[in-house]
Amino acid sequence: MTSQFSFELLAEDGGARQGRITTPRGAIRTPAFMPVGTVATVKALYPEQVKAAGADIVLANTYHLMLRPGAERIARLGGLHSFMRWSGPILTDSGGFQIMSLASLRKVTEEGARFQSHIDGARELLTPERAVEIQCLLGSDIQMQLDECIAHPSSPDEVRRAMELSLRWAERCRRAFAEKGRPGQALFGIVQGGVDPELRRRSAEALTALELPGYAIGGLAVGEGHETMLRVLEATAPRLPRTKPRYLMGVGTPADIIEAVARGCDMFDCVMPTRSGRHGHAFTWNGRVNLRNARHAEDPRPLDPDSACPAARDYSRAYLHHLIKSGELLGAMLLSWVNVWFYQELMTRMREAIAAGRFAAFAQDYRDRLSRQEPGGS
Amino acid sequence: MTSQFSFELLAEDGGARQGRITTPRGAIRTPAFMPVGTVATVKALYPEQVKAAGADIVLANTYHLMLRPGAERIARLGGLHSFMRWSGPILTDSGGFQIMSLASLRKVTEEGARFQSHIDGARELLTPERAVEIQCLLGSDIQMQLDECIAHPSSPDEVRRAMELSLRWAERCRRAFAEKGRPGQALFGIVQGGVDPELRRRSAEALTALELPGYAIGGLAVGEGHETMLRVLEATAPRLPRTKPRYLMGVGTPADIIEAVARGCDMFDCVMPTRSGRHGHAFTWNGRVNLRNARHAEDPRPLDPDSACPAARDYSRAYLHHLIKSGELLGAMLLSWVNVWFYQELMTRMREAIAAGRFAAFAQDYRDRLSRQEPGGS
Repeated sequence: MTSQFSFELLAEDGGARQGRITTPRGAIRTPAFMPVGTVATVKALYPEQVKAAGADIVLANTYHLMLRPGAERIARLGGLHSFMRWSGPILTDSGGFQIMSLASLRKVTEEGARFQSHIDGARELLTPERAVEIQCLLGSDIQMQLDECIAHPSSPDEVRRAMELSLRWAERCRRAFAEKGRPGQALFGIVQGGVDPELRRRSAEALTALELPGYAIGGLAVGEGHETMLRVLEATAPRLPRTKPRYLMGVGTPADIIEAVARGCDMFDCVMPTRSGRHGHAFTWNGRVNLRNARHAEDPRPLDPDSACPAARDYSRAYLHHLIKSGELLGAMLLSWVNVWFYQELMTRMREAIAAGRFAAFAQDYRDRLSRQEPGGS
Repeated sequence: MTSQFSFELLAEDGGARQGRITTPRGAIRTPAFMPVGTVATVKALYPEQVKAAGADIVLANTYHLMLRPGAERIARLGGLHSFMRWSGPILTDSGGFQIMSLASLRKVTEEGARFQSHIDGARELLTPERAVEIQCLLGSDIQMQLDECIAHPSSPDEVRRAMELSLRWAERCRRAFAEKGRPGQALFGIVQGGVDPELRRRSAEALTALELPGYAIGGLAVGEGHETMLRVLEATAPRLPRTKPRYLMGVGTPADIIEAVARGCDMFDCVMPTRSGRHGHAFTWNGRVNLRNARHAEDPRPLDPDSACPAARDYSRAYLHHLIKSGELLGAMLLSWVNVWFYQELMTRMREAIAAGRFAAFAQDYRDRLSRQEPGGS
């Protein structure tokens, strides 16, 4: 244990990096996938299952938690870790993306973002300073600056304006964090700039000058497409300091993650494992399996007899099919478990491959099979 | 292990009985509460949790399983135990109650019950012989005869007609079971007769003459009220053979169960622990707690610090309140766990009290506190 936040680069293999973030609440092995605990719960899983699956860190959402149950309330209850029974590191998203995607009547000014709660319509104002204050109240180990997320596509002027505003907000967040952050906590900046390499470069360089302990790449996986995302990553990641962790926000499929790791990204989060699980989809080393499909109705095989995850190893596809068709909670529980476990296994195998200098071969092997749908599936 | 089904009466204390049912799949300590696994899952719980909570046996529903995924399909997959990963005894309800409460366009004749599936409208016929056949295909350890359940109140003629039809169906089920049942499996008869003590007496005596290995009391907890139910129990239970287990179907609250045990009932099932859990209600030794209530919003205390159930011991009421208010699956998972565990603890304490000859004192102590709502609650 240390009271400092630090990042150690342990191996590089082509563009891929293997490392370790150290926080007072424990280490984060990178590349790392952070299961999403939007409202202080990784949906349909007990915290012990998330830990046992191999996750070092989970993500929670500032936007959701400020609205319900409220940051001050969580602080009075002893902070987010104790509230949700997760003793490891927590990263909190700042709320910018959710304001764009969930809130109504939003209006962004220099001051911050005004919006109406999607829960009860209450009028809210989120400024960069308040975003930091909320994350300090939650007690998150890695905080994100407030940024302005815009829809894709947007006009070049709009993309530039939002990127520049996000930069000014990054500076305000840094000042607020210098005042309110605790030792060992970290504030990450977020690179914006849409799909324009030049804007991304300017954003990355200006943020680098702020000497933050880590950097995120935001505003991707919003509909621009896989190839475009990779092009933006190629233009952005190398502009960020080699010695700081790089977090690609909201990404993605196993194939997306493999490509982003190949391009130098270290941290990821996505609702895909849990959301897909609730919808009846399982991730396996032989591709995605849609348990709704009638072909599983009499299949006595488990999803993966070799998995160490009980949900993948011990339950028949026929039973999973039945649970999903019947709308039973156990179906969502088992498939969310399968998927969160799978994503962690994927990260473990990538870390091992990078450490062994065989990441390119790993990526080639799995690129195709992971994006596969089982024959007859979908 | 034995290949026989047997019931041993270990202690009597007033009307209350403590005993043990032995089946090839394991022993059932009585009084026993059977968690309800309607469609082959005790909702929102992993089978390991149900077992660890102390349940010796679970219940599943013939009606639901015949419609989806189908009894023949479950048989082809190796039977219900392997399908739902429950290796202990399983009791299957025959479907009579669900046909009354769920199916549409139902028509009961001497032959059996015709109805339309509540899932897809398919026309179905359930005869006494088919009900036994289905339960044999499922491989259930304790099968229930097909009976006709009628609404309460019904006319005296209607109650008598349905009771007499159920008796004739019991005989047909017994013949079918003699042919198809396996050693160690048991078929229970079901006493009907509404709230008429004389009809109940005739039903109990006629069923007793069939020398079945156990008897259920059906058609209660359908709106007749607590006191009426107890009066019917008092008129019925003593008419059933002392040496056979008595199963009170679909009951009930902790207070209902205590009173029924005092009147000689040995087995119970009810959706209450799981359904209440999904709706935000927790059973504790200090009464019911409605976690939706705003008073829990900042309460850092667990539901019961002395419980061995992790869900009751390790999570704050504030967090449970947040999960339930947010509609999160983890809320349903935790509260279902709390309640299934609580019901098993209740049965354990009752068995201990009967064995020690202090059941009356136990009942007096808990009668009131268990039906209590926390002050300001509900």
